[in-house]
Amino acid sequence: MKEDDPGSKYFTDETTDRERAVFEAGITLGAIYHQFVGTPTRNEETLKKAIEESTLAHPFIVDAEVEVLNDEKSGDTPYEYPELGGKMLKVKLTSEYGDVQAVVGMKNVPELEYPLMHIIEIK
Amino acid sequence: MKEDDPGSKYFTDETTDRERAVFEAGITLGAIYHQFVGTPTRNEETLKKAIEESTLAHPFIVDAEVEVLNDEKSGDTPYEYPELGGKMLKVKLTSEYGDVQAVVGMKNVPELEYPLMHIIEIK
Amino acid sequence: MKEDDPGSKYFTDETTDRERAVFEAGITLGAIYHQFVGTPTRNEETLKKAIEESTLAHPFIVDAEVEVLNDEKSGDTPYEYPELGGKMLKVKLTSEYGDVQAVVGMKNVPELEYPLMHIIEIK
Amino acid sequence: MKEDDPGSKYFTDETTDRERAVFEAGITLGAIYHQFVGTPTRNEETLKKAIEESTLAHPFIVDAEVEVLNDEKSGDTPYEYPELGGKMLKVKLTSEYGDVQAVVGMKNVPELEYPLMHIIEIK
Repeated sequence: MKEDDPGSKYFTDETTDRERAVFEAGITLGAIYHQFVGTPTRNEETLKKAIEESTLAHPFIVDAEVEVLNDEKSGDTPYEYPELGGKMLKVKLTSEYGDVQAVVGMKNVPELEYPLMHIIEIK
Repeated sequence: MKEDDPGSKYFTDETTDRERAVFEAGITLGAIYHQFVGTPTRNEETLKKAIEESTLAHPFIVDAEVEVLNDEKSGDTPYEYPELGGKMLKVKLTSEYGDVQAVVGMKNVPELEYPLMHIIEIK
Repeated sequence: MKEDDPGSKYFTDETTDRERAVFEAGITLGAIYHQFVGTPTRNEETLKKAIEESTLAHPFIVDAEVEVLNDEKSGDTPYEYPELGGKMLKVKLTSEYGDVQAVVGMKNVPELEYPLMHIIEIK
Repeated sequence: MKEDDPGSKYFTDETTDRERAVFEAGITLGAIYHQFVGTPTRNEETLKKAIEESTLAHPFIVDAEVEVLNDEKSGDTPYEYPELGGKMLKVKLTSEYGDVQAVVGMKNVPELEYPLMHIIEIK
């Protein structure tokens, strides 16, 4: 990998491919959350696709699945529309560095009342 | 209009429908710019649609046309990808309040080196 | 004003100074909301100052007052921290164009369950 | 650490403390970038402090140093003001999980024409 990655020399030599894959996956989750949370939308399908495309544009990301869970604003006044909240966003993505793939996700964990980002698998 | 708008009582009585239409249009331009600038993407078409949908979700917006102008990053390294810059975004939208429509836009103005937001027509 | 504003020629001639002031104020409210909502913070005072400075950096904005209302996350787990929600943000700002000043605001309106942006005064 | 972290059970058991520290650090870099890039400002010092506070509000982040490098907009027209660009942002932060600390950074790398996020040290 390192021979194809002009950025690798800026990393400490101790960085394993597993750690690098996890690092890139973490960056992408943080980016997606803070780029898109707050977006007003009435069309979850289009927003889902835009978030997936944006996820895949990050370096070393090879797969992305996004769900935008439905909010329940009814639309009775001009001011009622869904705005993408952190807990409405479910993401699973895979980064690849060298021979390692890291599968990570973000989902609302009711027990924590928090949109948790977590490592699902490193393979 | 005012009878359908539960928010109108929070505005000064002096507000004309023209001013209200222009205000809502301005809010939406500012929102779109600061929500989406910085989004990484390799698929301008999907991003364009997501921005249009988001624009239309704002109160009192009845029409939206978005263009995402192409950046020229070549993709030779893992780090080269287009990120939506303010000058790549061209937007035209129409707000409606009462009998008034305001058509406003955002476009890069080379003379000002600035993505200018401007009022195109009030009708 | 127009003689000092190289952008004015991109506006329809029908634009009054009142409408222009309201337009610039609206842009700035939309920008502030979508730039800062979602920001994690434990120090509301610093965030408030940063939002005020950012507001004043917008063209034609001459005054800004921001309040970041306290959220009540308790901090018992590593995941509990306030994230700036739209309803926690209270803003009052003044734009000036020519001889006109527009005073606008954003505040949570419980009746609408909405962070309403509104025109307070045009003078 | 795991006994104090109610989120740890959502991670694969194979996750080492090093990997977890790197993951949390990566999330925070991605979040900071996409939260703050695009912010208009005329006061880099206030913005720097707000970004540092926001960085420290993320779970498991124990230290943060931010620099906002000066842009050179001159301010001759109402439209000229610095907007925080990705390449103007220099960040160094430390995450801690269990006995491990990960020091990571973001800085513009002219060779890559890219604001690179990198792992500086894991200790």
